[in-house]
Amino acid sequence: MEGAHQNILQRLAEVNMLPAAGYGSDDCCAAAREKIRSACSCPQAAVHFLVGGTQANAVVIAALLHSYQGVLSAASGHIAVHEAGAIELGGHKVLALAHDFGKVRAETVAAALHKYAADANHEHMVMPGMLYISQPTEYGTLYSLAELEALARVCRAHKIPMYVDGARLAYALASADNDVSLADLARLADVFYIGGTKCGALLGEAVVMPQPGVLPHFFTVMKQHGALLAKGRLLGIQFEVLFADGLYQRIGADAVKYAAQIRAALAEGGFQLYGAAPTNQVFFIMENVTLARLAERVEFSFWENYDEARSIIRLATSWATRGEDVQALCALVRGFYQGVAR
Amino acid sequence: MEGAHQNILQRLAEVNMLPAAGYGSDDCCAAAREKIRSACSCPQAAVHFLVGGTQANAVVIAALLHSYQGVLSAASGHIAVHEAGAIELGGHKVLALAHDFGKVRAETVAAALHKYAADANHEHMVMPGMLYISQPTEYGTLYSLAELEALARVCRAHKIPMYVDGARLAYALASADNDVSLADLARLADVFYIGGTKCGALLGEAVVMPQPGVLPHFFTVMKQHGALLAKGRLLGIQFEVLFADGLYQRIGADAVKYAAQIRAALAEGGFQLYGAAPTNQVFFIMENVTLARLAERVEFSFWENYDEARSIIRLATSWATRGEDVQALCALVRGFYQGVAR
Amino acid sequence: MEGAHQNILQRLAEVNMLPAAGYGSDDCCAAAREKIRSACSCPQAAVHFLVGGTQANAVVIAALLHSYQGVLSAASGHIAVHEAGAIELGGHKVLALAHDFGKVRAETVAAALHKYAADANHEHMVMPGMLYISQPTEYGTLYSLAELEALARVCRAHKIPMYVDGARLAYALASADNDVSLADLARLADVFYIGGTKCGALLGEAVVMPQPGVLPHFFTVMKQHGALLAKGRLLGIQFEVLFADGLYQRIGADAVKYAAQIRAALAEGGFQLYGAAPTNQVFFIMENVTLARLAERVEFSFWENYDEARSIIRLATSWATRGEDVQALCALVRGFYQGVAR
Amino acid sequence: MEGAHQNILQRLAEVNMLPAAGYGSDDCCAAAREKIRSACSCPQAAVHFLVGGTQANAVVIAALLHSYQGVLSAASGHIAVHEAGAIELGGHKVLALAHDFGKVRAETVAAALHKYAADANHEHMVMPGMLYISQPTEYGTLYSLAELEALARVCRAHKIPMYVDGARLAYALASADNDVSLADLARLADVFYIGGTKCGALLGEAVVMPQPGVLPHFFTVMKQHGALLAKGRLLGIQFEVLFADGLYQRIGADAVKYAAQIRAALAEGGFQLYGAAPTNQVFFIMENVTLARLAERVEFSFWENYDEARSIIRLATSWATRGEDVQALCALVRGFYQGVAR
Repeated sequence: MEGAHQNILQRLAEVNMLPAAGYGSDDCCAAAREKIRSACSCPQAAVHFLVGGTQANAVVIAALLHSYQGVLSAASGHIAVHEAGAIELGGHKVLALAHDFGKVRAETVAAALHKYAADANHEHMVMPGMLYISQPTEYGTLYSLAELEALARVCRAHKIPMYVDGARLAYALASADNDVSLADLARLADVFYIGGTKCGALLGEAVVMPQPGVLPHFFTVMKQHGALLAKGRLLGIQFEVLFADGLYQRIGADAVKYAAQIRAALAEGGFQLYGAAPTNQVFFIMENVTLARLAERVEFSFWENYDEARSIIRLATSWATRGEDVQALCALVRGFYQGVAR
Repeated sequence: MEGAHQNILQRLAEVNMLPAAGYGSDDCCAAAREKIRSACSCPQAAVHFLVGGTQANAVVIAALLHSYQGVLSAASGHIAVHEAGAIELGGHKVLALAHDFGKVRAETVAAALHKYAADANHEHMVMPGMLYISQPTEYGTLYSLAELEALARVCRAHKIPMYVDGARLAYALASADNDVSLADLARLADVFYIGGTKCGALLGEAVVMPQPGVLPHFFTVMKQHGALLAKGRLLGIQFEVLFADGLYQRIGADAVKYAAQIRAALAEGGFQLYGAAPTNQVFFIMENVTLARLAERVEFSFWENYDEARSIIRLATSWATRGEDVQALCALVRGFYQGVAR
Repeated sequence: MEGAHQNILQRLAEVNMLPAAGYGSDDCCAAAREKIRSACSCPQAAVHFLVGGTQANAVVIAALLHSYQGVLSAASGHIAVHEAGAIELGGHKVLALAHDFGKVRAETVAAALHKYAADANHEHMVMPGMLYISQPTEYGTLYSLAELEALARVCRAHKIPMYVDGARLAYALASADNDVSLADLARLADVFYIGGTKCGALLGEAVVMPQPGVLPHFFTVMKQHGALLAKGRLLGIQFEVLFADGLYQRIGADAVKYAAQIRAALAEGGFQLYGAAPTNQVFFIMENVTLARLAERVEFSFWENYDEARSIIRLATSWATRGEDVQALCALVRGFYQGVAR
Repeated sequence: MEGAHQNILQRLAEVNMLPAAGYGSDDCCAAAREKIRSACSCPQAAVHFLVGGTQANAVVIAALLHSYQGVLSAASGHIAVHEAGAIELGGHKVLALAHDFGKVRAETVAAALHKYAADANHEHMVMPGMLYISQPTEYGTLYSLAELEALARVCRAHKIPMYVDGARLAYALASADNDVSLADLARLADVFYIGGTKCGALLGEAVVMPQPGVLPHFFTVMKQHGALLAKGRLLGIQFEVLFADGLYQRIGADAVKYAAQIRAALAEGGFQLYGAAPTNQVFFIMENVTLARLAERVEFSFWENYDEARSIIRLATSWATRGEDVQALCALVRGFYQGVAR
């Protein structure tokens, strides 16, 4: 809900009147690429800057798949639910997988691939052509390194690329529960993106291809999708700053800490948590009849129906969340049910 | 598996060397259209002839939907599973619905439409833009007239078109359990197609639009999809013959009768039926360990896994099935388990 | 305008009630494939049967191109003008080339490829990804073997496939001016199709890939495009018959002979020919004020405006054209202007 | 090449830490919309903010056209040449029109529409479904009000929408030769966009629909195309500032003045101008043999080949161009040929 980290605004002002080449070929983009490669311990990586997450997903997936292929994703995946059909607009089916609070297991992926291959009619069906996951997931959960390695093994055994949506990656990196580094992602994913928009930037996502040849002519693919920013510098600056002095790795720390505090307060206050994600999102279950009462005091997202009478509610902290607001919220939820006829 | 009804071959031969206009503007197509309109009690209907079922579904659905819409369908629907992503290639998501042996209930459709409208994020989601059903369904079940009317009511209340895939429609019309006539379909559906390929024709599906304005420029849409047959007469002949003297309404009768005989024999023989569809398809459950044994004697389709140890098997009769083959099959299955160590 | 060669109807009747596997895996398709491979001296070729020309072009071109590529074609090419945007529906631009009565020269193709590569902005432009030509062309002209070899050399030097649309190929093979055999096509083209619909079949086009790996999963691609015929046998029969005893190579001979007679009669009668194509199509130029007069006696196609006052008219003979009709037409056109105030 | 007008950076900093709703529903976007409506004298207009020009064109055109339609455009139009096939990726053909330095005449559009309608085969062809023009054009020329009115009359008579690409609109508005106001555009165009990226913004284009119903569910269409910015405020701020106190209408004035000075200097220096566009772009023709020499001193764009030996060169000034740089360039080109052996 806020703008960008202060350092980004400063850098924007600094370089504002310096002429720069367009379409991502400027010095800021070059510096940002170099810093990202370094943070990923992947000096040969190709790095492209896109404007937003849906755009990044749509362009990368369209570029990775053959026309007759679909993308495996948790049924809860952003591409499966909240991108208005961007993947289908590109011609591809999202092949929904069972999941556990947003996470898909390697065995689930393997089973889907085997089921397809074993089906006598598989030539009449959509071939699974890649795996999409996100870190953290839609429910804020994290893949462990072991889980990610297992997924990568399945994908490589079946020769399909693994793509990781990192829209909120900073909140994974800042979580105490996380054991997956940027270098691990670069080692295990065929393509992934480092989210800027939700992690301190004005806008922008950095698509990383550890093996640069994986998506030939990606520049033209971006252009064709209307995803090539003329003043590419604007995107370069976001990541140049976020990857200076490890800012990106730190920027989510407060948000993760605050989310843990809110979770604790909710539990104390008698709310039922929905999952126990270790990042910046908090999900809990609430009676519909008392929802309006909470809404008078707190802005939150309805997430989905839990059952006829209850809803799942989402709260999300961010790099810009203020401690005082968190404390006020915690106080409110601790005492909420005392002031409500349940 | 066989070719076409004898009358079709005869008619083909009769008109073979008579010159005819192309692209469906010939006399045979005109006659077929008139007969179909009459059989549907719908004199104003537009009728277009397409080559196959996947093609008909893909072209009609692409033409009915706006870019930002998807199509509601039973999760088991042909478009959802067995068309290799043809709907997604056209840019649209198949929105899967729960079903009962292939049938979706009006309440399920209504609930999906309400859920979409009620979701705070629905502008970020795929809007349900039409309903796809088939009669009979993928599992050979039938919608009753009351069920179809309920579905039509929901669709009209929400201003979305209802489209009926009639790939095997002749087997519905010939079933004693059926109470839905062609005229009912024309009254209730916005678009439907009368299947030829599986119902006695060499090829061809007749797409019927009871209100002709529903899909403007459909001729060009067909052409653009590579779905316009140059010698359209070939398709006209199929339906001219099938709709002469009520042949289409009769042609599935033997198949339905034989399927019932097979179902009875399977039950007698100790096989577990899977559903009790009243049309030409027979589904039953079988231990994987004895499947190979059956396969030595009978050609059948593996349909899907029932559980780890058992499969669902499909047998389909047709207008061309011979009574003697059915009797032989019935004898075999009645005694099958006596010759097998269970 | 007529149906099919008599042998095809006979064969259809012969096999009508024999059960056959679906989707092109039957014996008739197998036999037809073998005969086509043999006629093309290309034993390893993959052969797929599609229903019509626009469909074949749309499916093959979509399968050959990457998303960021377009197809080079004569500006007059069928895909550029008369397929209702089927190529664009598939996501690709038709890159129009200058031509001489439908033929593009190797130098023109090379120049287009060089211009693209040399353009400083070419990453913002559509990359030429393949060449589409037809034999005969839209104007009935023929590529010589030398011309075809030159085109193939350019394509191979630039690593783009060459695709040949053979909708009317029988009329090329039957022309005295032709020196390009089926084996030459198989040697020079990456994909081509042998037209059935306009050359004696009820329907059907045989797509030939001399190197079978060129389009992986083409079966599924066909299905996804609604281009897979369930009773594939119907298509197999067309080509099994057309390629028995060299019928295909002979079937266009009368049409070509008759077209030459009509051309001669038109010239004698004072009509101005438009081009001098050596196949079954005849183009001539006529004053608009006298067109209506001709239309009273002859059915013909308006082709395009020549200038303000004159039109280009097309006549096409076929395998089914009768000599007596040709003689009547010739008599008419020889004397036409004597009965008209010019 | 530069960043953004100073006021934009200031406003960004001001509101940076104020929480704002996402996806364009914030106060900055609301203020920007109101200011644009006011500047367009069109209080009912819908205004949507997109990120870039190719994106705006691709999304608007895809939303305006039916699947079977194409877009009429000057053959030199940005969508026809420099958008990497974005329009075709959306499924539509660009129907190229003859033009005069980028401008299409109303008669040319009318003739194309008549030709389509009159063609006996038009149902097999792409239907012209809208007109795309740009103001200024690719060659920097301007439509006069009378010309624009004539185009609008043709479009309305044929019931096709007219869409105006205003990527460089500020330079039209600032030109002494211009007689087309924003209010005129709102009166005559069905959709147009006001360019920000090239006119003082960091990024952003404001799509204006004078009749808001013209593109229903455009929010979802944007999302589906990956064109919905999460922090929509960023775009709102650009236009809130550009439309405060008439800045947008003034911001191109220096650029236009400088371009005129450069044109005069080129002419004095013996260069041959290519067209005489009255906006911020300068085109001239130069011998290829002396190009390298100019390139040592000046950064410019190669535009296209004029003939074998000569190129067309483009120079573009902008809101950020400095007078001292212009004077230096003018001095250089005035004396250029004196220092060169022609």
